[in-house]
Amino acid sequence: MTETQRYDLGDFTLQHGATLRGAHLAYATYGTLNSDKSNAVVYPTWYSGRHVDNEWLIGPGMALDPDKFFIIVPNMLGNGLSSSPSNTTGAYAGPRFPGVTFYDQVRAQHQLVTRHFGIERLALVTGWSMGAGQTYQWAVSYPEMVERMAPFCGSSRTSYHNKVFLEGVKAALTADSAYANGWYGDRLPVVGLRAAARVYAGWGFSQAFYWDKEYEKLGYTSLEDFLVGFWEGFFLDDRDPNNLLAMIWTWHHADVGLTPGFDGDTVAALNSIRATALVMPGEKDLYFPPEDEAWAVNHIPNAELRVIPGTWGHFSGNGINDDDTRFIDNGLRELLDRPGGLG
Amino acid sequence: MTETQRYDLGDFTLQHGATLRGAHLAYATYGTLNSDKSNAVVYPTWYSGRHVDNEWLIGPGMALDPDKFFIIVPNMLGNGLSSSPSNTTGAYAGPRFPGVTFYDQVRAQHQLVTRHFGIERLALVTGWSMGAGQTYQWAVSYPEMVERMAPFCGSSRTSYHNKVFLEGVKAALTADSAYANGWYGDRLPVVGLRAAARVYAGWGFSQAFYWDKEYEKLGYTSLEDFLVGFWEGFFLDDRDPNNLLAMIWTWHHADVGLTPGFDGDTVAALNSIRATALVMPGEKDLYFPPEDEAWAVNHIPNAELRVIPGTWGHFSGNGINDDDTRFIDNGLRELLDRPGGLG
Repeated sequence: MTETQRYDLGDFTLQHGATLRGAHLAYATYGTLNSDKSNAVVYPTWYSGRHVDNEWLIGPGMALDPDKFFIIVPNMLGNGLSSSPSNTTGAYAGPRFPGVTFYDQVRAQHQLVTRHFGIERLALVTGWSMGAGQTYQWAVSYPEMVERMAPFCGSSRTSYHNKVFLEGVKAALTADSAYANGWYGDRLPVVGLRAAARVYAGWGFSQAFYWDKEYEKLGYTSLEDFLVGFWEGFFLDDRDPNNLLAMIWTWHHADVGLTPGFDGDTVAALNSIRATALVMPGEKDLYFPPEDEAWAVNHIPNAELRVIPGTWGHFSGNGINDDDTRFIDNGLRELLDRPGGLG
Repeated sequence: MTETQRYDLGDFTLQHGATLRGAHLAYATYGTLNSDKSNAVVYPTWYSGRHVDNEWLIGPGMALDPDKFFIIVPNMLGNGLSSSPSNTTGAYAGPRFPGVTFYDQVRAQHQLVTRHFGIERLALVTGWSMGAGQTYQWAVSYPEMVERMAPFCGSSRTSYHNKVFLEGVKAALTADSAYANGWYGDRLPVVGLRAAARVYAGWGFSQAFYWDKEYEKLGYTSLEDFLVGFWEGFFLDDRDPNNLLAMIWTWHHADVGLTPGFDGDTVAALNSIRATALVMPGEKDLYFPPEDEAWAVNHIPNAELRVIPGTWGHFSGNGINDDDTRFIDNGLRELLDRPGGLG
């Protein structure tokens, strides 16, 4: 069921003008598409995540039950499985990989959904973090296709503060001269990767998470054990530096207002959404704070804000804390029982 | 009046065993010590700050009025003016500068206050950030000397999350191979300094500060202009990398519970405080969040928590936003009108 599939995008021209020649999406599906093709769900990946990293929210008895839904998990361009700096050869290889916007990401996924599967409507689009950003983008790019949307711990537009956070991660990674402007070859900038991990560590979980030593619940035996074992390990787990920077580019430039036709007007873009929306930020998410999502919900015609309570911050959407997983799963269940926005 | 003074500490043995030979404190004073020596205030410096950076809170008509008080601003050991990696010669130079605790910092200041000035009681100890940490330390190390204390945007113990934040700054700075384990000589690790600055940028001000583009009030014309002009400029303003790391060491190890006699018991240390306390965290301070100070206030016999409202986060205590400055100044004025804790 989780076997990786490949969809060829051919020569894929990006919003900023570059063409990725012979581009492809790697994806996985869960469940079976029903005869009237009404049970499809798109669930995009997050920063550095791969499709398998989304599976915690899919399963029998859960809202995303493969016995009921046909769940497509497309890997983001740049994540190392779909076309990425690390697997692109020729002129656009490595640090020359072009900037891919969420508009591009979702247009590629749209081709997979419509041309390959012949699906015209999606029962739900959902995702965590950058997956939430792609969820917003789906609802703005293809309002006539998305019945329901459930972005969690992510935003419709990368806020200025969020960009500053990303700049810190990027600066730490690239401060290592072994990064060599991206031409590191087989000699990874390990010092920079580990520095980026340590920068990220402060942002991924809340102040209260650390105060309460919640990392002990994940099996880490001290603060430093968590920083090395979880965070540095995370960044060293087959995560290519150029891929990480390509995804940061995508993240940094995220704004549904930059969808063609909206001329930078994020509010107008949010206003155009037809999907029934359930927006679930994490109470103590430090880079996608709930206030930002309250703002977005105010501009979506049919949207509910439901804050994930607790201290796990951004990682409340990562499937590693049972309470948070239940909360999100229950939210999706309720949303799927509601009428879609397309009538 | 703001001329830098020098107090020789002689051979100063630190809590962890090293001896700084020929150590000194650089300090400045404002106002005149009255005849019964009852009008002295100690106002220590913050991370990388120098005594002149404290002057925004001192002035005629303000709570810290030099016409009323004798205000001593001692520079922290490690800040480049008092004994520091950058000005120490011989075996303990540069990256071999030993770890200095807040207990050490305050013991050095205590020598200045008692031996040089002959002061037995302090009307007030106050400070921002690491200056707040030294304020707590004064009240625990010398409870019989401190009538009043007003730590703002700082803590009695560096929280785990705060340590993670510091680890990110440190990792970014040292990821630059030009850092060379601290033996960079005249060739500063500029890439690492700028990376550290960019990491710091996300923490210094709140999400809402950036959302509202408050940096425009400081004269910066874009987000990037603020990151380069304010933050990178800040870290390049004669801030020696080894000094920055020495001060991070001090900060990381801060805990009044580590004062001799308390055996690591922070609560017992807070309980021992006799000073009348006004504790002012910033509402949206991301590394010294108000919850932590609420916790501390709960354990100090005579303390009030008063949260500085608004979006300037940690830098609400930096004197660059008039509303915050007024709030802090008013707090100090009220506190100085209250009876001291020594009866």
